[in-house]
Amino acid sequence: MKRLIVNAKTKKYSVAFYNSFENLLKEIKDLNTDFSKIVIITDDLVDKIYTQIIEDIIKQAYPEIYTFVFNHGEKNKHLDTISEAYSFMLSKKLDRKSLVVALGGGVVGDMAGYAAATYMRGIKFIQIPTTLLSQVDSSVGGKTGVDFKGYKNIIGSFYQPELVYINTQTLKTLPKNQFSSGMAEVIKHGLIMDKDYFNEIEKKVIKIKELDDDVIASLIYKSCSIKSEIVSEDEMEEGKRALLNFGHTIGHAIEKIKDFKLLHGECVSLGIIVALYISKELNYIGDNIIIRVEELLKSFNLPTFVSDINSEEIYSELFHDKKTMDNQINYILLKDIGNSFISNKVSREIVLNAIEKIIR
Amino acid sequence: MKRLIVNAKTKKYSVAFYNSFENLLKEIKDLNTDFSKIVIITDDLVDKIYTQIIEDIIKQAYPEIYTFVFNHGEKNKHLDTISEAYSFMLSKKLDRKSLVVALGGGVVGDMAGYAAATYMRGIKFIQIPTTLLSQVDSSVGGKTGVDFKGYKNIIGSFYQPELVYINTQTLKTLPKNQFSSGMAEVIKHGLIMDKDYFNEIEKKVIKIKELDDDVIASLIYKSCSIKSEIVSEDEMEEGKRALLNFGHTIGHAIEKIKDFKLLHGECVSLGIIVALYISKELNYIGDNIIIRVEELLKSFNLPTFVSDINSEEIYSELFHDKKTMDNQINYILLKDIGNSFISNKVSREIVLNAIEKIIR
Repeated sequence: MKRLIVNAKTKKYSVAFYNSFENLLKEIKDLNTDFSKIVIITDDLVDKIYTQIIEDIIKQAYPEIYTFVFNHGEKNKHLDTISEAYSFMLSKKLDRKSLVVALGGGVVGDMAGYAAATYMRGIKFIQIPTTLLSQVDSSVGGKTGVDFKGYKNIIGSFYQPELVYINTQTLKTLPKNQFSSGMAEVIKHGLIMDKDYFNEIEKKVIKIKELDDDVIASLIYKSCSIKSEIVSEDEMEEGKRALLNFGHTIGHAIEKIKDFKLLHGECVSLGIIVALYISKELNYIGDNIIIRVEELLKSFNLPTFVSDINSEEIYSELFHDKKTMDNQINYILLKDIGNSFISNKVSREIVLNAIEKIIR
Repeated sequence: MKRLIVNAKTKKYSVAFYNSFENLLKEIKDLNTDFSKIVIITDDLVDKIYTQIIEDIIKQAYPEIYTFVFNHGEKNKHLDTISEAYSFMLSKKLDRKSLVVALGGGVVGDMAGYAAATYMRGIKFIQIPTTLLSQVDSSVGGKTGVDFKGYKNIIGSFYQPELVYINTQTLKTLPKNQFSSGMAEVIKHGLIMDKDYFNEIEKKVIKIKELDDDVIASLIYKSCSIKSEIVSEDEMEEGKRALLNFGHTIGHAIEKIKDFKLLHGECVSLGIIVALYISKELNYIGDNIIIRVEELLKSFNLPTFVSDINSEEIYSELFHDKKTMDNQINYILLKDIGNSFISNKVSREIVLNAIEKIIR
């Protein structure tokens, strides 16, 4: 079993890697044996598979456990669902000594974390991510929140969990397209920070797709290491953390225009390619890198082009994002695989041309 | 001019005491000359008197300034008003480099602070408290939030301002009953922490009521010193900060039952008396202290009894409070003036008897 320590400015906590839920009870007890009540927050899809298992485990030491279930998907990630969660928590008389358990993927983690951050001015919570995307990315780092009026994650809080408990075996119940979606973030980690890691992913495509236990475990560990290192250094995204937005500026725009019918990672895949074409246009990288990355994305069935959308539409959507309120877009670009940087000096024309490359 | 430094765990900031708004612009510039936009959040009553003055001052250095006004009073302190504030902030394209200015009393500070805490995962804000209550108490310490389903301040965040700018002259436009309401918190500060301070308030009743500049300035400074010392030591209310709830447990219950028709400080006044009777019943204090405190409260026209309410009703309302979710009530009691402590071992009977003392 492995463990990573995230040393954020506001909290120090661990990411624990297991291949079962056997150690969950011990990990929670190690935080506090006195939690008065526990509420699991999850969505309807995860609920069917995991709620009973998790409840049974936790109940052994904490008899007062309740589960709040909401309908899955980004479309339900808004303040009304949060209000329902508050009402549920109040009806179960959760107090300051209670614990919230976020059980599920990225949407669940964002929402449960935000509910915990704002209920009674903040109660403790832990993350049990059950998707590849949440295991390698969203469960670590304390970004919580909801969408509002079409703006993604515009309302929220930086609020760190007490623990991230990763059971890599949950990936076995994950739909294939959801697994691929997570791979977009994994590939992103290699691209922005670690050339060796990127090379390794390239070499192990087949074993990754077969969900080989050892390969998957080491992949998740590596991605979490990269994420937690960045978060420990820059919790509030005042600098380096912005590199994690690689592929996300364009990605979010496509996600929004496509009304969340494409998965997050699928949109990130498209965003990565646009970022690479911008980098190429500015003479930072050559075609060889673009070809390699496209091949790798394709090998995980991630899209490298998109239809029924136009570049102007994507470009104007860029200004409907919390990071571009001041009409200035920070593009994350590459100088090489593993070597990323931030630039706010990219012309409209270059961006439009790069977007054209993914439209067919 | 005086200045206090609040050294909370999450932020260090100053409380600046002035008798005009002359230095407001300099104080804001000292925080950051690069704020992209500024939004004032205030209520309709304060708006009429101060918005124009504050806008004109800030505009000299920050041309992009907007004001969001909501209807005054605790009744509007809920998530719907917060959502309106979010929409306003989005429509003005506030970004991460923008500043929120809370201009008004306690309700304004709580709401503006919460909007700032959760917009884009937190943007900066300052407090310009215009009531005695907010100047001596609520503007310092970072408690932000709203009421929800009848629970007071149940949704919120600990989120510290960058600055508290106190212009004591604003008290000259404050209705008398609002001034009295603030005096309940001032008297509380003496009772829980500082006997000399309490004695001084007793001696200077007339000058305080005349709003004597020097006396008022030193009173606000002293109360803020007590508050900021406690907050610096215990930001998240894990210990000592709970002493500030003296008079508030019973006070909140009455406030709720009376449907917010009594002012907060008026309810605190009643709550203080109940706390004193409990302290007496447990043999910590004698009648002499109760008489002195009652006299002092009365001299500021604060109520010492209440009608059309019964003790059972108040007692059961105690369990409809975020601090008593676990069915355990922490009473703040006195051993002497200036010497307070927390007890969760007070029988129902003793509490009911003490409540009876304020019902006529």
